Amino acid sequence: MENFLHEHPIVPRTDEEKQAVINRLKRIEGQVRGIQRMVEEDRYCVDILVQISAINAALKKVGYTVTERHMKHCISHAIKEGEGDLAIEELLEVMKHHSK
Amino acid sequence: MENFLHEHPIVPRTDEEKQAVINRLKRIEGQVRGIQRMVEEDRYCVDILVQISAINAALKKVGYTVTERHMKHCISHAIKEGEGDLAIEELLEVMKHHSK
Amino acid sequence: MENFLHEHPIVPRTDEEKQAVINRLKRIEGQVRGIQRMVEEDRYCVDILVQISAINAALKKVGYTVTERHMKHCISHAIKEGEGDLAIEELLEVMKHHSK
Amino acid sequence: MENFLHEHPIVPRTDEEKQAVINRLKRIEGQVRGIQRMVEEDRYCVDILVQISAINAALKKVGYTVTERHMKHCISHAIKEGEGDLAIEELLEVMKHHSK
Repeated sequence: MENFLHEHPIVPRTDEEKQAVINRLKRIEGQVRGIQRMVEEDRYCVDILVQISAINAALKKVGYTVTERHMKHCISHAIKEGEGDLAIEELLEVMKHHSK
Repeated sequence: MENFLHEHPIVPRTDEEKQAVINRLKRIEGQVRGIQRMVEEDRYCVDILVQISAINAALKKVGYTVTERHMKHCISHAIKEGEGDLAIEELLEVMKHHSK
Repeated sequence: MENFLHEHPIVPRTDEEKQAVINRLKRIEGQVRGIQRMVEEDRYCVDILVQISAINAALKKVGYTVTERHMKHCISHAIKEGEGDLAIEELLEVMKHHSK
Repeated sequence: MENFLHEHPIVPRTDEEKQAVINRLKRIEGQVRGIQRMVEEDRYCVDILVQISAINAALKKVGYTVTERHMKHCISHAIKEGEGDLAIEELLEVMKHHSK
């Protein structure tokens, strides 16, 4: 998975799209800092585990948003160009890891 | 899961323990910021998915470290005090969510 | 998710394709029976957990095979017909559950 | 993970406990056979994916039941005997794989 099929999505993300994803990532970044504080304050382990779990769920959601857009633009484009198989296999490869 | 059994771990985390976890969380925080940059630069979707997957893996590792310590200290203590079942059920409840 | 977009894949599975998936499912069925025997023989819990984990991995593999074929045939077809979005959203919906 | 700490759980499973787990595994076995039939009948891919997802969830539930009993008996016993760490590490090792 060193070399991807492309450098950019086939249809550039609009500023709005970018902002929506970045906002969610900023919230996740804040949650990660929140856990650092919890460790600092020596908070109860289970309390920390719940927060880790929440971040994982939030990250997965971002992943699904990215995947959906990827399928609707990049993969759709590749399919129309007769190069769908390669694009599909590339995504599957990453989904296998993503699901771990 | 509103009320946990404790406010703090039964054996306080040492400064070294805290620092080790915080260092890993800082690295994760940096990775989350890295994805924000990738979105900003309109980088290829699959490239972003790979990074999200890496963060999820790193977060899970932190989760296992916290879980292991929790079992070795808090749960072990609860078991010795004859209150193991409640502590075990509390952890299981969170593990079920964590694995999602 | 009660009503799916189709009753059958857009391109029927060949006998060979069917047999390949069924063989893997038969092996998984055998593994599930194996765990029943382990419980009967009162085998060590961790030993059983390892087997459950192996079955989950094998099932996921079957899932990815099905998903890949689905994308290469059904979704590709839908995209070419200008109905890709609905098909993509249907798959995403299920992947979100699958990853849990 | 070739050699486990024990051959059997520290407290033997009662007939009732065995039966409860076996019943759930039999149901799962039936679900796996159900998917074979679906493939035979060339059923829609997403329909099959939903069933695979259901089996994975059911298997995980069995896994949590086994884990809970393991912690309440085998690990609790090991902790009381002063050998908790090894038992905890053994379980953690398997949980890491289980969560994949």
